Amino acid sequence: MALKLYGIAMSTCTSRVMTCLHEKKVDFELVPVNLFAGEHKQPPFLAKNPFGLIPVLEDGDLTLFESRAISAYVAEKFTETGYDLIRYQNLKEAAQVRVWMEVESQQYHPAISPIVFQFFVAPLQGKTPDQAIIDENLVKLGKVLDIYQDKLSHTKYLAGDFYSLADLFHLPYTYYFMKTPCANLINDRPHVKAWWEDISSRPAFQKVASAMTFGEKGN
Amino acid sequence: MALKLYGIAMSTCTSRVMTCLHEKKVDFELVPVNLFAGEHKQPPFLAKNPFGLIPVLEDGDLTLFESRAISAYVAEKFTETGYDLIRYQNLKEAAQVRVWMEVESQQYHPAISPIVFQFFVAPLQGKTPDQAIIDENLVKLGKVLDIYQDKLSHTKYLAGDFYSLADLFHLPYTYYFMKTPCANLINDRPHVKAWWEDISSRPAFQKVASAMTFGEKGN
Repeated sequence: MALKLYGIAMSTCTSRVMTCLHEKKVDFELVPVNLFAGEHKQPPFLAKNPFGLIPVLEDGDLTLFESRAISAYVAEKFTETGYDLIRYQNLKEAAQVRVWMEVESQQYHPAISPIVFQFFVAPLQGKTPDQAIIDENLVKLGKVLDIYQDKLSHTKYLAGDFYSLADLFHLPYTYYFMKTPCANLINDRPHVKAWWEDISSRPAFQKVASAMTFGEKGN
Repeated sequence: MALKLYGIAMSTCTSRVMTCLHEKKVDFELVPVNLFAGEHKQPPFLAKNPFGLIPVLEDGDLTLFESRAISAYVAEKFTETGYDLIRYQNLKEAAQVRVWMEVESQQYHPAISPIVFQFFVAPLQGKTPDQAIIDENLVKLGKVLDIYQDKLSHTKYLAGDFYSLADLFHLPYTYYFMKTPCANLINDRPHVKAWWEDISSRPAFQKVASAMTFGEKGN
């Protein structure tokens, strides 16, 4: 039975999991959740994820939420197919993957997500993007990217000379960020730019990116 | 050779890793970092963690940072000793541990950490705790705890009927939070209160908690 992924293709967190599933060459069915009708805040969905957030993965009788946890589960369960995202046969490399997955979660995400929110979500709520929030987080993000620039001058990817879940976790928010007027924050740092061009051109992400149309006309 | 943990015993993130090491009965040496002298922002420490944050773990030639990544490494490497924090022999249980580790990281931590910061760190910077920040985050934390209260009415711990790294990750910030006037947020929710009393009374954490004196006279 194919996995069921509840979410929407243009969502950052749904696309994180979809990219992982494509890398692992795992079949899945995307079950759309009608966010505009508030389906994610209704009892049937809340029974799957009490936080009322997409995505949710169902694998038989197992129900999982939180996109990073789902991705790690997929990468660990399907070791035999697709690309090895977690270096599961090498404890030291696997540990470095974990370190940089946490860096994404604790350092990168808290800085980039408010910027993406201001440009893409605030307008939907009838608000003008708050420049003070954008500026404050651009400073934070710039400091993180300075460290990435240095790290990526020594290794090709964040956790080492291999693409991993740590890099993958950066894709969805950075993809939307690159559509904003702040993209120079990446483009002005040559090693970060080369890394971004590399990871965002992988076929598994390209399949997903084509549906990431949030903020475009009609969405 | 014993592991080396660079940090300070009263720090939330250092104590998270120390609790994990005690649960796994792994010997380690705590190497103090003089934060007040800015040692963590000097080149020798930045070579270990470019973000200039404690803790850092050295295991032979392997250097790791980010407390949650270090803890996961320790729990995975030392499967033969101490308590099994990650249910490594059961893929489904291990997946639920990951889900609730991510809930701590993405839902709980962003709400509780600004409150703890306002009560414990702001005064050190000569500032009065900002009540607006505290109130805003108490609302967020209350919503998360409502979901915990429901979850903990069905299972004894967050990921199931077994203590895990997911529960452990909550210990350090909640410990300091319980010293603030906002502790009722936990105490007023019976299942959350019982869970807190259970996990905070484990010997591995008790060893660590006795040194968590941040904000007390002389510290």
